[in-house]
Amino acid sequence: MGEFKILSTIKSPEDVKKISEDKIPQLCTEIREKLVEVVSLNGGHLSPNLGVVELTVALHRCFDFPRDSIVWDVGHQSYTHKLLTGRYSQFDTLRLRGGISGFPKREESIYDDFNTGHSSTSISAAFGIANAKLLSGDSSHTVAVIGDGSFTGGMAYEAMNCSGRFNKNFIVILNDNKMSISKNVGAVPRYLTTVRIQPWYIRVKNFTEHALSRLPVLGKPIKYVLKRSKSKLKNVVYKNTLFDCFGYTYLGPIDGHNVEELENALSVAKKENSPVLIHVVTKKGKGYQPAEDNPGEFHGIGKFDIDTGEPISSHKGFSAEFGKYMTELAETDDKLCAITAAMANGTGLKDFSKSYKDRFFDVGIAEEHAVTFGCGLAAKGMRPVFAVYSTFLQRSYDQLIHDAALGNLHLVLAVDRAGIVGSDGETHQGVFDVSMLNTIPRATIFSPTYFDGLKSSLYNALYYCEGLAVVRYPRGGELYKPEDFGEESVDYNYFGSGVNENLIVTYGRLFSYAAKAREALAESGIKTDILKLCRIKPINPKAIKLAARYKNVWFFEEGVKNGGIARNFADLINVHGFAGKYHIKAVDDTFIKQMSVSEALESLKLDSQGMVEVITRDLKANEKKT
Amino acid sequence: MGEFKILSTIKSPEDVKKISEDKIPQLCTEIREKLVEVVSLNGGHLSPNLGVVELTVALHRCFDFPRDSIVWDVGHQSYTHKLLTGRYSQFDTLRLRGGISGFPKREESIYDDFNTGHSSTSISAAFGIANAKLLSGDSSHTVAVIGDGSFTGGMAYEAMNCSGRFNKNFIVILNDNKMSISKNVGAVPRYLTTVRIQPWYIRVKNFTEHALSRLPVLGKPIKYVLKRSKSKLKNVVYKNTLFDCFGYTYLGPIDGHNVEELENALSVAKKENSPVLIHVVTKKGKGYQPAEDNPGEFHGIGKFDIDTGEPISSHKGFSAEFGKYMTELAETDDKLCAITAAMANGTGLKDFSKSYKDRFFDVGIAEEHAVTFGCGLAAKGMRPVFAVYSTFLQRSYDQLIHDAALGNLHLVLAVDRAGIVGSDGETHQGVFDVSMLNTIPRATIFSPTYFDGLKSSLYNALYYCEGLAVVRYPRGGELYKPEDFGEESVDYNYFGSGVNENLIVTYGRLFSYAAKAREALAESGIKTDILKLCRIKPINPKAIKLAARYKNVWFFEEGVKNGGIARNFADLINVHGFAGKYHIKAVDDTFIKQMSVSEALESLKLDSQGMVEVITRDLKANEKKT
Repeated sequence: MGEFKILSTIKSPEDVKKISEDKIPQLCTEIREKLVEVVSLNGGHLSPNLGVVELTVALHRCFDFPRDSIVWDVGHQSYTHKLLTGRYSQFDTLRLRGGISGFPKREESIYDDFNTGHSSTSISAAFGIANAKLLSGDSSHTVAVIGDGSFTGGMAYEAMNCSGRFNKNFIVILNDNKMSISKNVGAVPRYLTTVRIQPWYIRVKNFTEHALSRLPVLGKPIKYVLKRSKSKLKNVVYKNTLFDCFGYTYLGPIDGHNVEELENALSVAKKENSPVLIHVVTKKGKGYQPAEDNPGEFHGIGKFDIDTGEPISSHKGFSAEFGKYMTELAETDDKLCAITAAMANGTGLKDFSKSYKDRFFDVGIAEEHAVTFGCGLAAKGMRPVFAVYSTFLQRSYDQLIHDAALGNLHLVLAVDRAGIVGSDGETHQGVFDVSMLNTIPRATIFSPTYFDGLKSSLYNALYYCEGLAVVRYPRGGELYKPEDFGEESVDYNYFGSGVNENLIVTYGRLFSYAAKAREALAESGIKTDILKLCRIKPINPKAIKLAARYKNVWFFEEGVKNGGIARNFADLINVHGFAGKYHIKAVDDTFIKQMSVSEALESLKLDSQGMVEVITRDLKANEKKT
Repeated sequence: MGEFKILSTIKSPEDVKKISEDKIPQLCTEIREKLVEVVSLNGGHLSPNLGVVELTVALHRCFDFPRDSIVWDVGHQSYTHKLLTGRYSQFDTLRLRGGISGFPKREESIYDDFNTGHSSTSISAAFGIANAKLLSGDSSHTVAVIGDGSFTGGMAYEAMNCSGRFNKNFIVILNDNKMSISKNVGAVPRYLTTVRIQPWYIRVKNFTEHALSRLPVLGKPIKYVLKRSKSKLKNVVYKNTLFDCFGYTYLGPIDGHNVEELENALSVAKKENSPVLIHVVTKKGKGYQPAEDNPGEFHGIGKFDIDTGEPISSHKGFSAEFGKYMTELAETDDKLCAITAAMANGTGLKDFSKSYKDRFFDVGIAEEHAVTFGCGLAAKGMRPVFAVYSTFLQRSYDQLIHDAALGNLHLVLAVDRAGIVGSDGETHQGVFDVSMLNTIPRATIFSPTYFDGLKSSLYNALYYCEGLAVVRYPRGGELYKPEDFGEESVDYNYFGSGVNENLIVTYGRLFSYAAKAREALAESGIKTDILKLCRIKPINPKAIKLAARYKNVWFFEEGVKNGGIARNFADLINVHGFAGKYHIKAVDDTFIKQMSVSEALESLKLDSQGMVEVITRDLKANEKKT
C-alpha cells in the first residue's frame, strides 16, 4: 500500500493548482498506486484511468472546475478526477453499495457535470452545456474528454457536425490511446495513426507550444496571419485534418503523459476563438506493467492480485460458452458470421475472431451500424450473429424494428449481460432489453437458464427461426440446478403435478432462485409448481393454458415490469379463463443503483428468500380476504 | 397528362441501356412528368425524386441490377428506380392501399435490394451486402445512394468508418442537394460547399472524365502514378477530402443532371480498386418550378394542384398548434429552447426558429445527439423541447434512458405523428413510442385528444414535471368532439354515471372514435361509459379504482399491445380487485402496411364501427358463457 503523501492532502482542485511543478510526477505516481490498489480490491476500470492521470492533473491545473465544466465520455476514466475533487477519502468505497460510483454522477459531486456510462455522448452533452452557458451570458469553458474508441460511435460525429461553428470556450479533448476497449477498428482510428506520425503535425505542436503559448503577445498575430493567409502553409497546417472539416481548430498531437506539454496546449486552446480539438496521445494502462502489457484485459476487471495482475476469480460463464459454441458451429456452417461492437473479449468471441477472421466483424462502438450491417449480410444469405451487451443494445432499437424485423431479415442477437450486472451500476443494468425486444413484431426471444439452454436456444435461433431472433443470458455463469431438472427445453419446462394451487412462472437465471424458493416453501408446507419459460416471445399457448388453471400465479421477472413478459403473460392467461390471483414481482419503474447482483436481487425480492417472502405474504393476504 | 412515349416502353433496366444518348433528355422529361402527375394525385415525396432522375438513369445504364445491388438511403428518392424496373404500369397506385410503396421493398421487386424508410442506413446495409458477396465469391458491385442530409446521421459515419478498408466493388454516391428535408445544417454539409467550389476538385473531375475513363488504357497507369507518388499533387488531388480520411477514393463533384458526366464517373468508380465515394451535385425539385422554388415544402407533400403547386388540402393541425404555442411560451420564458432533427417545417417550429433563433437548434438528422444535447441544455438550467416524429424517436431510446431519465434531467419531448400515419406505410407508423417510453423509469407521458389538451399537457410537462416528460399527438388535426365534452384534463376525463356495467378506456385521438361508438351503442341499447386518459404514465390511481368497479372493460389502443398502456392498466385494475372481464384491442405483434389512417383504423377495429363490433361481440360471448 502506498503512503499517498501528496494525494492525501488534496481536498479540492485548488490544491492541485498549488502543487509545485517538480512534485507533479510524485502526485501522478501516488494516483496510479491508489488506482491500482482500489481496483485490485473492488474491481473496476483500470487501464483507461491509468492512461489519463497526467491529463486529468493538467485539466485541473488549467481550468477552474466547477465554474468551467467537464464531461467525461463513458466516464470510466474519471477516477483521477474523483481523487482530485474531494473524493480521495471515500475512494475505497468505489463501486460498492452506497459507495462512490465508477462513473461521473451529478448527485455525487458538483464537479461531475454530466452523468455518463455509455459511449460517445460527451460532445453532445458538453455542447448542450456550452450553449446553455452562452444563452445565460456565462463565459466559462466547457470541455469534453473522449477516447478514440468512443469516437467511432455515430453520436460523436453527429455532435461534431453540429458544434463546429460554435464561437469559443468549447474544447474537445481526443484521448487517443489506439484502443477502444480492445484494439480499435476502422478508418478514423487508422487516420489518427497517420496524423500521429506525419511531420507537419509535429511542427504544429512545436509551433503552438513554443511560439504561441510562450509568447502570447507575438503568438496571436502570427496565428492570425496563418489562419487568414491564403498560402499553402495555411492549408497544410490548419486545414488538413478530419477535425478541420468539422470546423474545429486542431491542436496536436500532444504527449498525454507530459503535464507541462498538456498545460501548454490547454492554455492555447482556452484562448482560441473557435471550438478546439486537442489530440492527446496516451498509453492505456500506463504505469502498471500488467495493464500496459494487456490493456484490453485491464479495461474493466474484477478483483486481481497487484503483484501478478492475475484475476482473483474468473468466471466468464455464459460469454465463454457462447463463444465456444459459435466457434464450433462455424466449423460446419460457412455462412455463420459474428459481429461485435468493440466487445470481442467481453462477448467471448476472441477465438472465433482468430479462427474465422473473414467472418468476424468488429465494427467499433457502433451498435446502430452493427445491426443494419448484419441485416445487409442476411439479405444476401449469410447467417449473422450480433453479440452485444443488453444495455448497449438499447442503441439499436430503431434498427431492430426498421431493418431487421420489418425487412424480415434473419439476424440473430446474442444479448450478453442481460439482467442485473452488479457494480457497474445503474447505467449498465440489462433490465430493458426484454421490454424493448418484446415490442418488436415477429421477433423471437429466448432467455435460457443454463449453458445447455443457451446452446439449444442459439441453435434454434440460427436454424429454426426466421427474421429477428434473440438469445439473452446473464453475466457470469450457471447458478443452482435442481438434481431432477432434466433437459432444458427451448420452449418451457414445467415442474409440478398440476394438483397444486400455486404456480411460480419465471425465466432466465431467476429459475435457480425459484427452484430454491420452492424447496424452502415446501419445508413450511406450501406446495408450489414452477413453469420456467425459455422462449418468452412468442409464448407457447400450452404453457399459458397450463398456468391458467392455477389459483395463484406469481411471475418473477429480472427486468422492468412495464412492457415485460409478466404483464403479457397475465393478459394471456386471463384471455384463457384464468380465475385466480396473479402477482408480479419485477423492476417497477425504478433504476437499480450500484451493488452486487445478489444485493440487487435481494433488494428487489427476486432472490429465493424474497420469493418466499412474497409468496407467503400474498397467500396470507388472500386468506384474509376470503 | 404526359404521353410517356419512351417511358411506357421501358419494361426493365435492359430497356434503359438500349436508349440512344440523344433520347435520354426526353426520357428524363417524361419521368419528371410522371412523378409530378402521380404525386399530385396520391401525395408523396416529390423534390427528392425530381433531383435524382438523371442519376437513376445513369445508374441503370452503367450497372447490371439486380446482379449488382443498390440501397437507396431513406428510399423516398426511389420512384424513378421503380419506374425503370418494371413498375411503370403500377405507378399510379403509389402509396395507396395494396399499391406500390413509396419506399424500396424487397417483397415488391427483385430490384429493391434492401428496405429503407429511416435515414442514414444505406451504407451499413450496402456494406453488409458487399461483405456477403465477398464471402460468397460474388464480384458484382454494391452501390449506396445517400443524400447530404442523411449524411448528418451518425450511422452513416459509423458505416464509413468501417468500410474504408474494403477492397473494391463498393461505391457510395453522395447525392449533395444542399438539403436534408429542409435546408441542411452542420459542419459536414458546410464542408461539402467548400469542396464544391474549390478549383482542384474541378480538376479532378475533368481529369477523371477525360483522361481516365476516355482513355482507360492510359488512365490506369496515370492514376497509379498519382496515387503512389509522394508529390504534393497527390496530397492535393487525392488525399484532402473528408472521405479520404475514411479511406475512400473521392470522385467529384459531378453534375448530377448530366447523364454523360454521371456515366463517366460511374465507369471510373467501377474500375477502382478501393471503395469509392462519388460526390454528385443535384438540385432538389429539379424540373418542376414550384418544387425548385420551395424544395422543403415539396419534400413530402399531400395532393396538390400541378399548375400552381398549391396543396389541395392542408391540415397541419397538431403540429401547427404545437409550434404556435411554443412561440407564445417563448415570449415570456427565456429559458425555453426548441430542438429539431431536420424537421423544422414538419413539427411546426418554423416561426419559433425565426423569432427565437438563438434558442432554436436544428441538429440535422441526428436524433441521438438531439436528446443528449437537450440534456446538456437542461443540465445548465435551460428548458429544452425536442420535437420529433414518433417513428424517428426510436433512434433515441438509449439516450432517453441513459441521459435524460437516469440523469433526471428535465427534457420535454413533443412527439408528433404518434399513432398511425397513413401512406408513408409501415416504416413510419408511430405505434411503438408509447411502449418504448413506458419502459423508462420516472418518465411522464401525456397523450391528449384535442388542441386544448395538447397545450395544457405541454404546459404541465414544461412547468410541473421533472425529468423526462413527453407530450404525444397524432398527425393531422382534431377529430370528433362530443358537445358535452367540457374541458380536457391533463389527467383523465370520465364520461359516465358509474351505474353502467361497461367501460371503454382509451387515450389520444381514439377517444373521438370511442365517443361515436358510445353513441352508436346507446342506440342499440348498450350503455357504456368512457374513461379517457390523458396522462398515460403514471396513471392516476383514482382512474384505476374507478375502472376496477366495472363488469366489462375494453381498452382501445392505437399502438402495439406488447408493452402498451392497455396491459399495464389491466394489471393495475386487477391489483385493485377488478373482478370483471377485460378486453384489449391494439396492434398485436404485427406491422401496419401502407393505407390511409382511416383504412388502417378500420382494419384494426379501432374506428367507431370496429369498437361497436368488438363490444357487441364480446358481450354476446360473455352471455353465452354465463
